[in-house]
Amino acid sequence: MTTAHGDTGLLAPGWADSAAASATSDHAYLRALLDAEAALTRAQAALGLAPAEAATAVTEAAGSGAFDVRSLAERARAGGNPVIPLVAELTKAVGEEYGPYVHRGATSQDIMDTATMLVAARTLDLVLAGLGRTEQSLARLAAEHRDTAMPGRTLTQHAVPTTFGLKAAGWRALVLDARDRTTAVRDSLPAQLGGAAGTLAAFGAYGASDPTGLPTAYARELGLRAPDLPWHTLRTPVADLAGCLAFTAGALGKLAVDVLTLSRTEIAEVAEGNGGGSSAMPHKSNPVRSTLIAAAARRAPQLAATLYGSLAAEDERPAGSWHAEWEPLRDLLRLTGGAARDAVELAEGLRVRPEVMREHLDLTGGLIVSERLSAELAPVLGRARAKELLARLAAEGRPLAEAPELADVDLDPTHYTGSAGALTDRALERR
Amino acid sequence: MTTAHGDTGLLAPGWADSAAASATSDHAYLRALLDAEAALTRAQAALGLAPAEAATAVTEAAGSGAFDVRSLAERARAGGNPVIPLVAELTKAVGEEYGPYVHRGATSQDIMDTATMLVAARTLDLVLAGLGRTEQSLARLAAEHRDTAMPGRTLTQHAVPTTFGLKAAGWRALVLDARDRTTAVRDSLPAQLGGAAGTLAAFGAYGASDPTGLPTAYARELGLRAPDLPWHTLRTPVADLAGCLAFTAGALGKLAVDVLTLSRTEIAEVAEGNGGGSSAMPHKSNPVRSTLIAAAARRAPQLAATLYGSLAAEDERPAGSWHAEWEPLRDLLRLTGGAARDAVELAEGLRVRPEVMREHLDLTGGLIVSERLSAELAPVLGRARAKELLARLAAEGRPLAEAPELADVDLDPTHYTGSAGALTDRALERR
Amino acid sequence: MTTAHGDTGLLAPGWADSAAASATSDHAYLRALLDAEAALTRAQAALGLAPAEAATAVTEAAGSGAFDVRSLAERARAGGNPVIPLVAELTKAVGEEYGPYVHRGATSQDIMDTATMLVAARTLDLVLAGLGRTEQSLARLAAEHRDTAMPGRTLTQHAVPTTFGLKAAGWRALVLDARDRTTAVRDSLPAQLGGAAGTLAAFGAYGASDPTGLPTAYARELGLRAPDLPWHTLRTPVADLAGCLAFTAGALGKLAVDVLTLSRTEIAEVAEGNGGGSSAMPHKSNPVRSTLIAAAARRAPQLAATLYGSLAAEDERPAGSWHAEWEPLRDLLRLTGGAARDAVELAEGLRVRPEVMREHLDLTGGLIVSERLSAELAPVLGRARAKELLARLAAEGRPLAEAPELADVDLDPTHYTGSAGALTDRALERR
Amino acid sequence: MTTAHGDTGLLAPGWADSAAASATSDHAYLRALLDAEAALTRAQAALGLAPAEAATAVTEAAGSGAFDVRSLAERARAGGNPVIPLVAELTKAVGEEYGPYVHRGATSQDIMDTATMLVAARTLDLVLAGLGRTEQSLARLAAEHRDTAMPGRTLTQHAVPTTFGLKAAGWRALVLDARDRTTAVRDSLPAQLGGAAGTLAAFGAYGASDPTGLPTAYARELGLRAPDLPWHTLRTPVADLAGCLAFTAGALGKLAVDVLTLSRTEIAEVAEGNGGGSSAMPHKSNPVRSTLIAAAARRAPQLAATLYGSLAAEDERPAGSWHAEWEPLRDLLRLTGGAARDAVELAEGLRVRPEVMREHLDLTGGLIVSERLSAELAPVLGRARAKELLARLAAEGRPLAEAPELADVDLDPTHYTGSAGALTDRALERR
Repeated sequence: MTTAHGDTGLLAPGWADSAAASATSDHAYLRALLDAEAALTRAQAALGLAPAEAATAVTEAAGSGAFDVRSLAERARAGGNPVIPLVAELTKAVGEEYGPYVHRGATSQDIMDTATMLVAARTLDLVLAGLGRTEQSLARLAAEHRDTAMPGRTLTQHAVPTTFGLKAAGWRALVLDARDRTTAVRDSLPAQLGGAAGTLAAFGAYGASDPTGLPTAYARELGLRAPDLPWHTLRTPVADLAGCLAFTAGALGKLAVDVLTLSRTEIAEVAEGNGGGSSAMPHKSNPVRSTLIAAAARRAPQLAATLYGSLAAEDERPAGSWHAEWEPLRDLLRLTGGAARDAVELAEGLRVRPEVMREHLDLTGGLIVSERLSAELAPVLGRARAKELLARLAAEGRPLAEAPELADVDLDPTHYTGSAGALTDRALERR
Repeated sequence: MTTAHGDTGLLAPGWADSAAASATSDHAYLRALLDAEAALTRAQAALGLAPAEAATAVTEAAGSGAFDVRSLAERARAGGNPVIPLVAELTKAVGEEYGPYVHRGATSQDIMDTATMLVAARTLDLVLAGLGRTEQSLARLAAEHRDTAMPGRTLTQHAVPTTFGLKAAGWRALVLDARDRTTAVRDSLPAQLGGAAGTLAAFGAYGASDPTGLPTAYARELGLRAPDLPWHTLRTPVADLAGCLAFTAGALGKLAVDVLTLSRTEIAEVAEGNGGGSSAMPHKSNPVRSTLIAAAARRAPQLAATLYGSLAAEDERPAGSWHAEWEPLRDLLRLTGGAARDAVELAEGLRVRPEVMREHLDLTGGLIVSERLSAELAPVLGRARAKELLARLAAEGRPLAEAPELADVDLDPTHYTGSAGALTDRALERR
Repeated sequence: MTTAHGDTGLLAPGWADSAAASATSDHAYLRALLDAEAALTRAQAALGLAPAEAATAVTEAAGSGAFDVRSLAERARAGGNPVIPLVAELTKAVGEEYGPYVHRGATSQDIMDTATMLVAARTLDLVLAGLGRTEQSLARLAAEHRDTAMPGRTLTQHAVPTTFGLKAAGWRALVLDARDRTTAVRDSLPAQLGGAAGTLAAFGAYGASDPTGLPTAYARELGLRAPDLPWHTLRTPVADLAGCLAFTAGALGKLAVDVLTLSRTEIAEVAEGNGGGSSAMPHKSNPVRSTLIAAAARRAPQLAATLYGSLAAEDERPAGSWHAEWEPLRDLLRLTGGAARDAVELAEGLRVRPEVMREHLDLTGGLIVSERLSAELAPVLGRARAKELLARLAAEGRPLAEAPELADVDLDPTHYTGSAGALTDRALERR
Repeated sequence: MTTAHGDTGLLAPGWADSAAASATSDHAYLRALLDAEAALTRAQAALGLAPAEAATAVTEAAGSGAFDVRSLAERARAGGNPVIPLVAELTKAVGEEYGPYVHRGATSQDIMDTATMLVAARTLDLVLAGLGRTEQSLARLAAEHRDTAMPGRTLTQHAVPTTFGLKAAGWRALVLDARDRTTAVRDSLPAQLGGAAGTLAAFGAYGASDPTGLPTAYARELGLRAPDLPWHTLRTPVADLAGCLAFTAGALGKLAVDVLTLSRTEIAEVAEGNGGGSSAMPHKSNPVRSTLIAAAARRAPQLAATLYGSLAAEDERPAGSWHAEWEPLRDLLRLTGGAARDAVELAEGLRVRPEVMREHLDLTGGLIVSERLSAELAPVLGRARAKELLARLAAEGRPLAEAPELADVDLDPTHYTGSAGALTDRALERR
């Protein structure tokens, strides 16, 4: 328990030990910062603005692993960002001859923003993989339970029957919506390059005849999109990330809150494949995956709010709103990556209990199909008398099947699932 | 000052008396609720599920203006939404014969959500119109000031020169980003139709052989998109609105915070066309439009957060998260609509003072081009000595032009705007 | 459906038609703005800075009801706040002789902030009354059900037994916490008076020898606390309101989410006194009060966040953060006031079903007391073997009562409520 | 750059390497979890419920440092919290004889919540120390500059003069408000002890005749307050922390945004003692401390919102809202602790330039005292003509001193600071 080690997610069972955790660690950011620096020199070399040897030297030094995250974190304090000490260290590591080519013409924000986009791209890939596996499991569940009737619940009360297939198809539709939004953002993430105030002026001072080609070359080195303009204070990429991540966390949150409800001891229509245990109560099988996803869904919107708030960034580099982005964006990436991991496990392992669903359809003594009865009795008795009759029967609390007035009506709740099957089929056509 | 009247925006100079205010008023929602009810009966008539006369009767009654918002608001309390009392009233207004066709097969949420989408569509059109006018003014400013040099500012300090053209082009780029995101959402807004638990079952009970065609017919009546699935608890449309509105408010917020800074008494590089006055201080000309936009940008992210939070909606209709959407979504629509109105006025009227910008470029005695000097002196003196020299000169506080060591260097800050012109040109190519 | 009327809460069944709605309407704010203006002149008269006749004239004109909210709202746009047009109108109404004493020496923010505190004070009184009635009902429930055993639920699963008395006592404890925090804030709300930049200078220019006594006299007229300093950009009072209101909404939210859970069709251990109905499903009795409280609890934190964000208010009056406070603070007051109203009704009408609770204690076949068995068997069998035994019995799914190994153990769940009774007693001692 | 190390604040120059960072690290939480476990056994021993040797054994094992944070973080995933694997490990470390006394009768949440309170208490002490040093520096600045006149600024424009002393006194008043709120919460932080569902039942099963005394003994061991009730889902302590931390971050944020404004190149009335540098621009001296504090103030409200949202915690332990508290609360503690560290440095090192302030008072050519002129000319010329005259002079743009009509009026802005001095004196009396 020395203090030499940093945080590894003790407070975050939702993302600790996940691929997203690794992809967003301080070390992953350091890796990305170094990737950005190396790519910058390579891009300059590609355009003849630096010797090829400088590109090689910087790339090698950047890959050497000789950088100490903790020390950089501490030294970041003076100037307010970690790029300043990192450039000093990298320059030294590159050596006297090619050191001057390190970070040449760039500003800290160029590197910091670019590294952030690299980290985001890598993490979104993980998120997308998780969403893909989740939707497949949900598609399977929807198909398998296309005709499994269960109570539809509104405002906590049984309303009319629905099917578990339609429910799972709905979950999947949200996951696909999340996938589509995340994919679009993933493919739009730009490199950042503008120099001190976004004019690319220093690159000209260092000899570029038309520096506007440099960002494109730079983006190509990194596999990111070339930016239309330097975006130091045009924070569309960050806001778009906020949006797709808050959406994804929320979409998985819907799955989670439904599983939490359906897992309740009294309901028990579904159960997580591997419930979490309790030391003192051997019978407990907690819906832990859903719990952790639900927790992520509670946090993501406010993290996104901070990022949306940073759109109002004054000047050519803002004093605070940029710095306020770093941790919340990382948190959002981690949380959503972790939630996607849990969603895979949740969807793959979900145990469904059609027989319990069937039993519950009878809990209201037939009233779950009262809507149908209203519809069928109204033409016969008139709307008002039909309503009156049903209200009376409901008040009496007897099963409707025993009511002589309803002798000829189909009270089987599994026959009143409407277009649930057709809607499920249609939803499953979406790829 | 009787209590008969409701709120009209006394606390909201940002949106009071705007088109967006009218488009989102209680009356506009009531109008949309009635539109939704009428369209539902018409759609059923179109599919042969109701007599044409019923469609006409409901449409006429819905258009009659005989509904009292305040009374509906009060009676909404019992069931928790205004559709319940409205249906009762509309049914009565339609009369005995066709009354039963009012709301037939639908659930309150079908109408409420559909009305919300109608209101959103109408308000987004206003937002888009405002964004369009704003971007045109900004394009004009960017072109006109393509080569107007001014200080680039980072972390509140002069960094290197930029141009006002590039700044305006950046503002415009954000406005276009907002326009693109808003347009995409505008075109995706779906009607809602699912019945009590989203299975369309009641429409079957009332005689539809395949109710899945009904939502399409319904959407067509309303000019909305046909939904893939009933989305009572698949809240993608609301989350998408949250995202594009928070984005738009933030994008305009960037413009606003820049104008606020540049308007400061000490800076005064720009001024709003019509500053707001003060009763006690006749000289004051406050940047009121920017202030109100900035205020909207501060509020929008948290309103969006509440909406993203409602994605985690349990069951077939949630007990709380749905109800928590209504006012925040309306607030977001209003605030953004109001901010777009103010942005039009701000951009159209903005007064730019190139001569003040030019003066400010000299405020640091030449240090604003120190980056260029670093670049140019380094090859001559070596990086370290060049840096040393500049640090010394900076410390001495004398204008650099007086330093004999820099006699041959171009210190004119207007010559160090880098690719600002080229970047502005490129940005203006975007339509 | 003319457009002459404003919003009256069509989207807000949570607060429409409540006392808090009236206390926070545009008209109530106008009333408070006029109260503030009249008090200012009276305070000056009290200190000999204005003729007594001026105080009378302003007070009478302010009370005349001759002001049009909608028109003021529209004219507020130019200067960004409603005080500017109101002062013009009030001055005119007072007439030539005493008109100059209207608003003399003050700034718009003095009046706006003071009016806001008046509105807040009046609304908090309503909130406190609601909390008081709620806690009394909860105290009654706690006492009445001191020994009513029910399942304790953790992570949605039955854990060990608890009592409904302890649960109700917990709800009440939160309500009392809310009351204490709200009372403290209620009693601290200050008047605002500083003049243009918070130095009280204009009052000196108008003849006060020591203007620092004026805020005290002013506060006395209004029944508010005298401020230590002008707080135009020292927003403690607003942040404190944010805190106590978010707390109160959340505290009531705990009650609401518990009732929502316990009301579920499958659980049904409690029911709201007057559930909301459904037009199509006559059997439904929705927990509407809980739903609306839960919705308020979902919104309040983000509204409070905007207010906390406004603490960072630059200069002597900020350009945006102040304006961003007005609507969210009003919303918070309304929402919390409405939630308190619903809580009264919820707590007073709550129907409790001890027999259902008792039945549910048996749902796990005795495993709900497995913790007790662990504790009692461990000394006999050893910890490991005891655990093993229970795990085996749990896996077998048979009721524990049938297990011969447990023949001598007390498996009655109502005997395993621990100190629930004693804790309830102690909690009820708090007043 | 191995992956063996965790995060140490690379993205967080605001808190990296601070005492608050250490006090809130994963290791600090582990330390606190172990402290809580040891205290629990000791408290049981103190009441005769466990042998003294068990208390010693557990305390020693807990202090041994033999626990691996990363491994615990990973194993926390299964059950959703780190206490479960920790208890297993600690039990093993204690050994067969006294192992059974580890965690006896408790639930994970007892330990997790108690540890959180310990961490909070330790971090709040650091925050309070920082606030104390900050307020002292600000008191010194206020006293020293009691009569240093400067422009008062409203909505970005010069309004009337104020003093730097009053500004500093205002900053200090907010810091004292933060201190008072934080102290109150610090002193109220309770231990948590309730067992599986908050009834203390297991302690009875293990032999306590009246387990209600145990929480008090437990709290005494830890230096925390004894809880009134188990608060597993009565989250007052967490909400109170949210409130005081968001308040403190915002209070410091006010200081920061003022310094950012006053540091602008064009204003330069103050400067941070040690501005942050830039690699490429040797002249730059960035207000980094203010920037980082401002960033914290932008994030804190949304973190607090998540915590307030967790008040609505269902059942006896909620599935998600509890888990959603952990990281945001830690983040709030860190951010605020880091901001307090920066505030100390900022306040201690702030350089004030009275001569620049004096110069700026003349920027408007005397219009900064136009309020005074209005007041003084009105009795002579009549209100309307006075206003007219000033408006004409303002429009002409000439210095007022040159206007013959104002020949006899005192136009010295340093003579129009009103009660700034007296207000400063009074504010400084507060301790």
